[in-house]
Amino acid sequence: MGRLSELFDPETVAVVGATDRDGAVGRAILENLRDEFTGTVVPINPSREEVLGIECYPDASSAPPIDLAVVVVPPEIVLESIRDLAEAGTENVVIITAGFSETGSEGADRERQLREIAEENDLNVVGPNSLGLMATPNGMNATFGPESALEGSISFMSQSGAFITAVLDWANEQGIGFQDVVSLGNKTVLDETDFVREWGDDPATDVIIGYLEDIADGREFVDAAREVTDDTPVVLVKSGRTDAGAQAASSHTGAIAGSERAYEAGLDQAGVLRAHSVQELFDSARALSGLPEPETDGVAVVTNAGGPGVLTTDAVGDSTLEMANFTDQTIAALAAAMPDEANVYNPIDAIGDADVERFAEALEIALDDPAVGSAVIVAAPTAVLSYDELAETVIESLEDHDTPVVTCLMGGRRTAGAEKTLRKSGVPNYFDPSRAVTGLDALARFREIRAQPVAEPTTFDVDRRRARDVLGRAKRRDDNRLGIESMDLLEAYGIPTPTGEIVDDPARAREVAESIDGDVVLKIVSPDISHKSDIGGVKVGVPDDEVYDAYEDVVSRARTYQPDATIVGVQVQEMLDLESATETIVGMNRDPQFGPLLLFGLGGIFVEILEDTSIRVAPIGEDEAREMVDEITAAPLLRGARGREPADIERVVETIQRLSQLVTDFPAILELDVNPLVAGPEGVQAIDLRLTVDTEKL
Amino acid sequence: MGRLSELFDPETVAVVGATDRDGAVGRAILENLRDEFTGTVVPINPSREEVLGIECYPDASSAPPIDLAVVVVPPEIVLESIRDLAEAGTENVVIITAGFSETGSEGADRERQLREIAEENDLNVVGPNSLGLMATPNGMNATFGPESALEGSISFMSQSGAFITAVLDWANEQGIGFQDVVSLGNKTVLDETDFVREWGDDPATDVIIGYLEDIADGREFVDAAREVTDDTPVVLVKSGRTDAGAQAASSHTGAIAGSERAYEAGLDQAGVLRAHSVQELFDSARALSGLPEPETDGVAVVTNAGGPGVLTTDAVGDSTLEMANFTDQTIAALAAAMPDEANVYNPIDAIGDADVERFAEALEIALDDPAVGSAVIVAAPTAVLSYDELAETVIESLEDHDTPVVTCLMGGRRTAGAEKTLRKSGVPNYFDPSRAVTGLDALARFREIRAQPVAEPTTFDVDRRRARDVLGRAKRRDDNRLGIESMDLLEAYGIPTPTGEIVDDPARAREVAESIDGDVVLKIVSPDISHKSDIGGVKVGVPDDEVYDAYEDVVSRARTYQPDATIVGVQVQEMLDLESATETIVGMNRDPQFGPLLLFGLGGIFVEILEDTSIRVAPIGEDEAREMVDEITAAPLLRGARGREPADIERVVETIQRLSQLVTDFPAILELDVNPLVAGPEGVQAIDLRLTVDTEKL
Repeated sequence: MGRLSELFDPETVAVVGATDRDGAVGRAILENLRDEFTGTVVPINPSREEVLGIECYPDASSAPPIDLAVVVVPPEIVLESIRDLAEAGTENVVIITAGFSETGSEGADRERQLREIAEENDLNVVGPNSLGLMATPNGMNATFGPESALEGSISFMSQSGAFITAVLDWANEQGIGFQDVVSLGNKTVLDETDFVREWGDDPATDVIIGYLEDIADGREFVDAAREVTDDTPVVLVKSGRTDAGAQAASSHTGAIAGSERAYEAGLDQAGVLRAHSVQELFDSARALSGLPEPETDGVAVVTNAGGPGVLTTDAVGDSTLEMANFTDQTIAALAAAMPDEANVYNPIDAIGDADVERFAEALEIALDDPAVGSAVIVAAPTAVLSYDELAETVIESLEDHDTPVVTCLMGGRRTAGAEKTLRKSGVPNYFDPSRAVTGLDALARFREIRAQPVAEPTTFDVDRRRARDVLGRAKRRDDNRLGIESMDLLEAYGIPTPTGEIVDDPARAREVAESIDGDVVLKIVSPDISHKSDIGGVKVGVPDDEVYDAYEDVVSRARTYQPDATIVGVQVQEMLDLESATETIVGMNRDPQFGPLLLFGLGGIFVEILEDTSIRVAPIGEDEAREMVDEITAAPLLRGARGREPADIERVVETIQRLSQLVTDFPAILELDVNPLVAGPEGVQAIDLRLTVDTEKL
Repeated sequence: MGRLSELFDPETVAVVGATDRDGAVGRAILENLRDEFTGTVVPINPSREEVLGIECYPDASSAPPIDLAVVVVPPEIVLESIRDLAEAGTENVVIITAGFSETGSEGADRERQLREIAEENDLNVVGPNSLGLMATPNGMNATFGPESALEGSISFMSQSGAFITAVLDWANEQGIGFQDVVSLGNKTVLDETDFVREWGDDPATDVIIGYLEDIADGREFVDAAREVTDDTPVVLVKSGRTDAGAQAASSHTGAIAGSERAYEAGLDQAGVLRAHSVQELFDSARALSGLPEPETDGVAVVTNAGGPGVLTTDAVGDSTLEMANFTDQTIAALAAAMPDEANVYNPIDAIGDADVERFAEALEIALDDPAVGSAVIVAAPTAVLSYDELAETVIESLEDHDTPVVTCLMGGRRTAGAEKTLRKSGVPNYFDPSRAVTGLDALARFREIRAQPVAEPTTFDVDRRRARDVLGRAKRRDDNRLGIESMDLLEAYGIPTPTGEIVDDPARAREVAESIDGDVVLKIVSPDISHKSDIGGVKVGVPDDEVYDAYEDVVSRARTYQPDATIVGVQVQEMLDLESATETIVGMNRDPQFGPLLLFGLGGIFVEILEDTSIRVAPIGEDEAREMVDEITAAPLLRGARGREPADIERVVETIQRLSQLVTDFPAILELDVNPLVAGPEGVQAIDLRLTVDTEKL
């Protein structure tokens, strides 16, 4: 695949299927290109000599060299056109034509062939079923939409073409500009990961935004995006969040509904800021595209209106930000500068008769406070305050400070002029205090993402060969479910398990019991019995001299319960001090988009009733494993709440990482549950295990 | 107090402190009144003969009869002016002047006197420290703000004057109108409860909205609002939700920070829809002011744009609404009317080439489906779709249907004309799919509120005199804390407690134990020892013949632990079967605004670590008590999750109501905790009790 930047910066753009027929898409694109594109436009159509007064060529080989081709021919001849382009040396193609996988099996077949041609010829292909793409520096509007974008530093991709036309109509009115815009269409070749990579390398792109209905390869996206988000913020609306939405997305683009929890975890690990509405997307993007990075999470609020000041404070309380705690010096300076009735604590209420000078003074003093990382000016209309002058003054104050400031000049008609002035200097103005805080919060969240080192999974020294042998049992036994008899899988990866042995006669059970200090636990081992306790298949606290009988009893109960069950034997295990320990669960299942998803939670009701679990896409590093433990609501129980002895959390964190390594090393493991993993003051022990193996992959 | 409607519909309005001095508030108000008010305006000022060309009077008694007086004189002479007005027979006064309780003790004293004068003379007083008030039918703008409101059916109160000026500037641009507007100021006499009552009776008010920083009397507000919300929707922004916000509110208006959880519960019980931003307030109000009530929660989405359709579906998934499940007939009709590529399931995707006719047809078919209670049209700009025509068509469709429809015509410039057309017919248009759904959701939530009968607390037959006697112990003992020795308080209110007795010698302990079936529990009884178990003050499962020694042991442990503790005795109690029971907590504390707040939760970690509790303002009815049980996350445990026997939830619900009656009957009970209230299959029993009593109130 060639460099994607050529997609957005071609010298010559061909419209394959150009026409001057009224209402035709091939005409709309040509018109859009003709009007503003600074390069050369080449119509291609075998049945015309010229289109819209521009010389037309019958095919790519007879045309001048083409850097980018926009293909709008009927679906039946798309493949032919692409081959022709490839032969003529064109590397970049946007396919507008619909009628591919979104329309049934014939279309799907066509799309498969398209992918093959692209691979053979190393083509960058956008679409098919795309609105097209735009780049503003060269005035290239290679779409059939009614609007061209204004120039700016936001690059924008969308899995919905309509989303682009709707956004541009509004953004043009608001004066919001873009660098590159691309309608992803069916994503047959190029997808979100490619554009995130491309724009991450583009110095003219300050913010990457997108509307997505699915992510083609979750793990690849996470890795690519996480590198990009170290420098460039990415804000995405990923729709299909709810069950109803996922169903709607699937019928719209055929997006496979990955689990929302997987998306949530994956996008979070990728350092992507997620927006839930068009408005939130742009409220965040506007702040991220024009403002410096805040140095702290402290916000100063300067207002002439008590009520809106309180609302702003509430919004700060709801966000990841906090109200800056002013120094005594700041408070003294504010008290000296403001009238007696003013409130000099944060939010600064310069009261109703505040003019532009008083606002400017308060803002200057606040910005000098080291606790202030960002500020918001919240104003209500009064007779003594000119919004136009206030805008000028805010911009002047910013010249001496590298602190992000946003405004919320409340009102309608009277804000228009000020908004325009502010926009020119990169200061976003918001209608509502809560939206202004959304903007500042995006800056703070992005700062936090950048501050976190890109996670490097720890590689533990493990016995991979032994693990492979254990997994091989599934193949040998011709049963893809493994259970407690395969605890040596965990041992191979350095996860502690209780001392013990699986035996198949009662005398040996007794021998094993005698070799263990204290009473023992007996458990039936059978791939066909999953709820061992329920059928009396577990006996706890058995003294050595009762082991023989207990063995017989456990086996006979299993046989009574399920006569046809395969009984592997009985596990004789040391008895753990569960009094001071907590039962946890560590599990994994595979998501169609993101691959192995790790799950952590406390056992029993916490998982079953309260659904108090944390999720990450594997492989994970130490920080992520620690977050998994910290973010469950019941975490204080592990840390020693209610007079308990604290569990050895470091060993829990390590165990999660070792399991992450295990499931990453063996894609054959489809599902795995260590339940319970007992965590006590002295460490952890895996007590039971269930996993499902794809024997084909071994 | 006279009828409030005179405040908004006076014949004659006086401006006391009228002046023609430039920039003076007394001039601004007079100008506002002069410009549009249809009644008579009377300036009052002893030092002028006329103001702005209108004849001026020295005082109220020399002026013509005044229905409403707007007072803007300096704070020192406000009281005098009010007395003068009262003597002249004026009943309605708005005090604009600031300098009352918000400025310190002198002002607070002035405010107290103002309240007295108002009470003596039966005056309706708005303010002081108010922006003023407006009514649109008579063109009365009795404020000093820069904008007059457009006429409409929304009545609006605000504890912040700046909030009003900001909102009006914006609303006038948006074409949103109001019926009455009032700036509440310091709420010395009239407060939110009065205006909710007034507007609830006003047929011209379709929706009541407000911005509040506190609620003066929570319980009174709940009762008044709940009656109003049976007919008229109330939507409020109550700020100071977060800790930081509450602090800011307190320094703004001196609002006492009641607990956010109390406000949440109280506003919910009042049937108030709560908004968290200005935008959400109006997104809801616009839908509630113009649209009919939906008959079901099913929403139909009609769009020409797959992506925005998915976003709308997500927003529906997040709301209390659901995507309507179309009948086969609807699907067949849609399939016949739409092109093959269209999606005829909900969301209906009429695809990109949909014109106005196709939208109209799809909408008509959807509105005929009985599952559809409301609909949203979501459109992206295309070459073939005129938003102006679409607006006309939507309005026509509505003529035959009594179903609420909102639109989300996405874009900027091209939406303006259509928006205006829609607005005239009461159809709100929203920028963003999620906001359109917010509007419809407000309708659905209001329907649900109306559907719930106003809760009538059940009155149980209780022994109030006995309860009073028990509480009297606190007075007799000169200790306002009562404990387990006062379990007869619960018995007096019909709440089951275990059989047993408090005894003060070991021989009697044994006698009591022998009279009880089975083993017993012994517990130390001392007002000074609250964590009885921790010090060994509880013994469980004691057989009769060990009771004597156990008594001695429990007492000696208590003495060792706290030599100066008052030891009332030892409780000998029957032993309950706790195996199949669940420990719950029912508690009460008093909120400064809302009074008795009931709390319910499961014991132990559920309350302490997970904070899984539900809250209501007492007194409550049966439905509310049941909601308290149902809404905790751990509720499935009571209902028999994980193989447990279900607890007798009806008895839990009844116990909560009996406690509600107890704490309502006795305001002297400041705090009360029944912990645990054991709930098993056979019923409930209160095992322990702690309460604090205000002995002055007995």
